[in-house]
Amino acid sequence: MAAGTTSAQGALRWDGEHLHALDQTRLPAAEEWLELTGAADTAAAIRRLAIRGAPVIGIAAAYGLAMELAALPGLGTLERAWEELRAARPTAVNLAWAVDRVRGAALGAGPTRMAAAARGEAQLIQAQEDAASVAIAAAGAELLAGTRRVVTHCNTGALATGGTGSALGIVGALHAAGGVEVLVCETRPLLQGARLTVWELGRAGIPHHLVVDAAAPGLIRAGAADAVIVGCDRVAANGDVANKVGTYPLALAARAAGIPFVVAGPTSSIDPALVDGTAIQIEERDADEVRTLAGMDVTVPGTPVRNPAFDVTPADLVTALVTERGVARPPTAARIAELLA
Amino acid sequence: MAAGTTSAQGALRWDGEHLHALDQTRLPAAEEWLELTGAADTAAAIRRLAIRGAPVIGIAAAYGLAMELAALPGLGTLERAWEELRAARPTAVNLAWAVDRVRGAALGAGPTRMAAAARGEAQLIQAQEDAASVAIAAAGAELLAGTRRVVTHCNTGALATGGTGSALGIVGALHAAGGVEVLVCETRPLLQGARLTVWELGRAGIPHHLVVDAAAPGLIRAGAADAVIVGCDRVAANGDVANKVGTYPLALAARAAGIPFVVAGPTSSIDPALVDGTAIQIEERDADEVRTLAGMDVTVPGTPVRNPAFDVTPADLVTALVTERGVARPPTAARIAELLA
Repeated sequence: MAAGTTSAQGALRWDGEHLHALDQTRLPAAEEWLELTGAADTAAAIRRLAIRGAPVIGIAAAYGLAMELAALPGLGTLERAWEELRAARPTAVNLAWAVDRVRGAALGAGPTRMAAAARGEAQLIQAQEDAASVAIAAAGAELLAGTRRVVTHCNTGALATGGTGSALGIVGALHAAGGVEVLVCETRPLLQGARLTVWELGRAGIPHHLVVDAAAPGLIRAGAADAVIVGCDRVAANGDVANKVGTYPLALAARAAGIPFVVAGPTSSIDPALVDGTAIQIEERDADEVRTLAGMDVTVPGTPVRNPAFDVTPADLVTALVTERGVARPPTAARIAELLA
Repeated sequence: MAAGTTSAQGALRWDGEHLHALDQTRLPAAEEWLELTGAADTAAAIRRLAIRGAPVIGIAAAYGLAMELAALPGLGTLERAWEELRAARPTAVNLAWAVDRVRGAALGAGPTRMAAAARGEAQLIQAQEDAASVAIAAAGAELLAGTRRVVTHCNTGALATGGTGSALGIVGALHAAGGVEVLVCETRPLLQGARLTVWELGRAGIPHHLVVDAAAPGLIRAGAADAVIVGCDRVAANGDVANKVGTYPLALAARAAGIPFVVAGPTSSIDPALVDGTAIQIEERDADEVRTLAGMDVTVPGTPVRNPAFDVTPADLVTALVTERGVARPPTAARIAELLA
């Protein structure tokens, strides 16, 4: 597939040799495809958020490792590229999960078949994540059957997960089942809601209104929504959820209003090694993401900034965790262990 | 005072004839003063937020009415200008309170002394609001003595209230009493926190960090703050508070973290005619405030928007209401009635 082609769904295309990624920093103004050839350029695209969304990060990193091994097979390449990709972003667990899987497949295949095994594992991960998104959409739409007005945050659509999305996949399934309206939080600082979710909903013909992040809790309190549906970047064994910064206030508002707060994601986003959310490493990103917008100052230049990319929502605020293996409602440690078993 | 002069404090200057207002839409990039001469230009400046902050809106509108009467004294002028100013913004009660006071003074003085009486009343309102801010700062600093890390929202400093500010006046007093650090919410869509509060704190030498609005609740949960201090645009008789959109999630987060959530404002912001917050009219502003930033698109052009300028925080989430007449802790209907008595 040629770079520059517009895709109706999905942020990644594998052409058998290279990975093509829709540059998500350029949407919705431009639809530009990057052609990635190895670990370094794939890691760089993940770091600068050209590729983002926990499941898509995992898929892309898997291909990054496979491409590096195809170019220069060997144990040295494997270890170096594995480390580089694993370090690209710290919070989403899918990244580590995916490159660990590819590494394991490469090591298991032996020197001569290492590259082919890595490529096969990357393709398998993509196929599994695509299938997971379909299962998540179906399970979530069943759980929330009849829900007509939802709030969502950040972007959890086909751009973020492969397939049809996690939280936004559920939204799409609800829409297909009878219609839905969406309040989209813009998701400062990088505006994934305003740029990406609005773009995806518009293409899908799903009615939506954009709001600033701080407006959603008050609108929820005023009765403007029947449910909140978000994705997840890392779920601890006890059900605590790390997700895009701004998720936690939506959970508080949903609880106060008595509406469901639903988290959707593939089981690859669950990290059973983490007892609870206190141990989740929260990435702090560059201050200029907050101080500027598209290169323009929005505050006094040089102003000190705190810029956590994620927050942690405690499990007791989560009505249900929807995965491709079923729904944890509520997401207790025991139920999550069952899903992973 | 000449337009263009830089002011170390305050957004308004009365030169005896005209009102000079610091154009708050231009800060912090430029310090430009508007020279206002009557009701129409004053109302326009309030509508486009060149003049903002509930108490300052009231003071400016009072002068607007007085200037109009000075130019063309008479009952017709009074009623027309009173209506125009009263309609400039719907949520803050100080605006109606101030122009009602000026109108009452003008009517009481009779035809020949109408203009002088109106001017005198406007000056009295300004002096009273200045004094109120000093009393609020002292009462709030006593209430929160020893507090070192606070979160604030929007702008409640000298730019918003006259004097030294309401919530930010308390922050200044805490700083003077032993030092304080401030987490400033940027306050989308119009970034009053990023533009105005950061600018005021920088000039005052008070340490601060800027955050996106959605990050504050997670940081509060993570233990990064000891109190939340905000202003108010309208307080109902039962203590429900309408304030800049994004206030309510901070109140929810403060409650969940067990830290005080303090609301500060002059008693002119209390509307005893409103039984509770459900009756507060919430201004919905132009969609382009959300869709664009400084004229640049941040989403798909034409995207539908909800843009409430305020939200309502229920009284039961408010630890204390700090006014120039004392502290309502908690802000019960009985205690608020006492303050107004």
